[in-house]
Amino acid sequence: MSDQVYKKIELTGTSEKSLEDAISGAVEMAADTIRNMRWFEVVETRGRIVDGKVAQWQVTLKIGFALEQQ
Amino acid sequence: MSDQVYKKIELTGTSEKSLEDAISGAVEMAADTIRNMRWFEVVETRGRIVDGKVAQWQVTLKIGFALEQQ
Amino acid sequence: MSDQVYKKIELTGTSEKSLEDAISGAVEMAADTIRNMRWFEVVETRGRIVDGKVAQWQVTLKIGFALEQQ
Amino acid sequence: MSDQVYKKIELTGTSEKSLEDAISGAVEMAADTIRNMRWFEVVETRGRIVDGKVAQWQVTLKIGFALEQQ
Amino acid sequence: MSDQVYKKIELTGTSEKSLEDAISGAVEMAADTIRNMRWFEVVETRGRIVDGKVAQWQVTLKIGFALEQQ
Amino acid sequence: MSDQVYKKIELTGTSEKSLEDAISGAVEMAADTIRNMRWFEVVETRGRIVDGKVAQWQVTLKIGFALEQQ
Amino acid sequence: MSDQVYKKIELTGTSEKSLEDAISGAVEMAADTIRNMRWFEVVETRGRIVDGKVAQWQVTLKIGFALEQQ
Amino acid sequence: MSDQVYKKIELTGTSEKSLEDAISGAVEMAADTIRNMRWFEVVETRGRIVDGKVAQWQVTLKIGFALEQQ
Amino acid sequence: MSDQVYKKIELTGTSEKSLEDAISGAVEMAADTIRNMRWFEVVETRGRIVDGKVAQWQVTLKIGFALEQQ
Amino acid sequence: MSDQVYKKIELTGTSEKSLEDAISGAVEMAADTIRNMRWFEVVETRGRIVDGKVAQWQVTLKIGFALEQQ
Amino acid sequence: MSDQVYKKIELTGTSEKSLEDAISGAVEMAADTIRNMRWFEVVETRGRIVDGKVAQWQVTLKIGFALEQQ
Amino acid sequence: MSDQVYKKIELTGTSEKSLEDAISGAVEMAADTIRNMRWFEVVETRGRIVDGKVAQWQVTLKIGFALEQQ
Repeated sequence: MSDQVYKKIELTGTSEKSLEDAISGAVEMAADTIRNMRWFEVVETRGRIVDGKVAQWQVTLKIGFALEQQ
Repeated sequence: MSDQVYKKIELTGTSEKSLEDAISGAVEMAADTIRNMRWFEVVETRGRIVDGKVAQWQVTLKIGFALEQQ
Repeated sequence: MSDQVYKKIELTGTSEKSLEDAISGAVEMAADTIRNMRWFEVVETRGRIVDGKVAQWQVTLKIGFALEQQ
Repeated sequence: MSDQVYKKIELTGTSEKSLEDAISGAVEMAADTIRNMRWFEVVETRGRIVDGKVAQWQVTLKIGFALEQQ
Repeated sequence: MSDQVYKKIELTGTSEKSLEDAISGAVEMAADTIRNMRWFEVVETRGRIVDGKVAQWQVTLKIGFALEQQ
Repeated sequence: MSDQVYKKIELTGTSEKSLEDAISGAVEMAADTIRNMRWFEVVETRGRIVDGKVAQWQVTLKIGFALEQQ
Repeated sequence: MSDQVYKKIELTGTSEKSLEDAISGAVEMAADTIRNMRWFEVVETRGRIVDGKVAQWQVTLKIGFALEQQ
Repeated sequence: MSDQVYKKIELTGTSEKSLEDAISGAVEMAADTIRNMRWFEVVETRGRIVDGKVAQWQVTLKIGFALEQQ
Repeated sequence: MSDQVYKKIELTGTSEKSLEDAISGAVEMAADTIRNMRWFEVVETRGRIVDGKVAQWQVTLKIGFALEQQ
Repeated sequence: MSDQVYKKIELTGTSEKSLEDAISGAVEMAADTIRNMRWFEVVETRGRIVDGKVAQWQVTLKIGFALEQQ
Repeated sequence: MSDQVYKKIELTGTSEKSLEDAISGAVEMAADTIRNMRWFEVVETRGRIVDGKVAQWQVTLKIGFALEQQ
Repeated sequence: MSDQVYKKIELTGTSEKSLEDAISGAVEMAADTIRNMRWFEVVETRGRIVDGKVAQWQVTLKIGFALEQQ
């Protein structure tokens, strides 16, 4: 059985700047330990409010990566 | 019973500029009348189209704030 | 029966720049063939990852437009 | 930041007559205290059964109204 | 343990007249064999189209009724 | 491969009168250009509020129709 | 009120062979006691794993059948 | 076809004491008439409020039981 | 139009003790300012973890209360 | 703006043989009129029951295809 | 990019005693190998029934923990 | 606290042959590194289309396995 199998993990990225930045941060941190990442799917968007202003963007995403045959 | 209780309200922010701006606008307008806001959750993202272009970003979010003991 | 009827189509826009750009691209391409577009609703946000970085933002949206009486 | 912000509240209207009547009743009661209502969205439809017959239509809806700049 | 327990069954009512009529029909037919019905919840609304017109309204609902202690 | 295939389109019907009328209007307008329509499914019910009263019923539905073998 | 009413029951079929077989098994067992079954809807697909292999396919489905006028 | 088939029924248990007690009550009442119950799934948690206090816990659950070959 | 209308608000109760306690705390705090509360519905259950142990139960619920005719 | 845009359509394929066959049939019929199809997503699985047996597998799927720049 | 990133894992805790105990058990077992756990979210509540009584509470939860910069 | 705890991971299996084969492939590859797998749940079914035909079945599933006490 040689068809490709992918694993999906769930991360929450945070950023003071933007939604895209929160996502990119999570993907890039995952890249430290995971190879062959292929796609992500946004699951939830939240944020922290401090003193009546948005202080942090929080995006939860699933990241899919190809498992390597052993 | 002294555990903290939070209330959540639902707002739709709009902006001609960006999704983040629509969210920030809703949070900042809420800050005029609500204290102790802590977090928001995005529930829906929509927009208005005029003359074949995106004319307005509309983001519906829930905002959670701490109720003050009376 | 003269009440307005709207049709909704589903598109996926892509962009290397931002979520807003992916949405705008889909709306503007649809404008080539569809008149009277009024609103969009975001259904799903995904993206492609290449070499451990976000390489493409992908936003699936529904676009509503007014049907013309025949 | 002068873009319009909307608030959404959730009401359950009831009627012995019809689904439309339950919705209208909730909207009209809200009109006693809320200005600038623009739209509603049905969230849930239920009802009470008495003696083997539908005795009450219950429709839960969200109502969106424009917040006024202060 | 004497607290009340309710059972819920799922029915689809149909009618050529209206949504309310489809619901009432299902409730009244259930009344032939079930006692102590208390409430219903609409789960799905569909219909049949014949010759370009709505020919039948179909509403799927759950009906809750009190179980009798044995 | 001669098994029947159906296509589903998504429309939003509107009416000042009732929910059923909004659905019927969408189905009948679709009948101008589409043959072999068989069923519809309600996806969303909304409405417009003007001067504190329901001014328009809006029902989004999917319509399924049989594709003709070419 | 003579419009047809349908009842829906929920079953989980199991099979060592395939998803279709798990569904067919549930339908055929239901046929022992229920007449006038018309359609099914798949609600959930699961399975049991034994010794690192799929050992059983489990499909939960709703079955709709016509109630007979009494 | 000898693979096991399960049926699922939906009950709402109530209790003045706790969520667990509402669930147990429903399961134990079902045991009066149903054999071979194997598992339950919580679908909804609600409750009644009287005089500003929780007066009743209400838990809706699905119960799965093995059907016996005839 | 004299049919009863209910309003629903969304609160998050917290407790160090139990899920029921988090719900009761939210209901009882709401009772300080809201009359005629009738029911609640649990929407989400979360919690805080400190030093590898559950430190706080957090339950988000909707509370329905009867609006008084003006 | 030259980023790729995709359109998604919704079809229901049917087959007397298997779930895979119902999907393949819908994809292949779509191929008669649509170019550049890239992926599908299963949205719903249903079927027809005749004489106590599964008589038809019905799978509703969304098909995504690349729009060509004009 | 120094913004905090969180990872979420999914566990199912079981207990013969209570829902809270099933959750606590999962959190505490996770603490053996995971540092910096911050929150959990309940995704599903089920249980096993033996001899007509609830024999085991099963709660599936997601646990979020802070990833450490490398 | 000796009650069993399970972990769930999310995989996407692919196959040119069938849905069952895509699931089995994911389960069997997971068996290379994970012991005590007990069940799977299908979360999403998709596929790739090449030259107007289904070229690959893709099934995303969650796999539950028992954690071993340390």
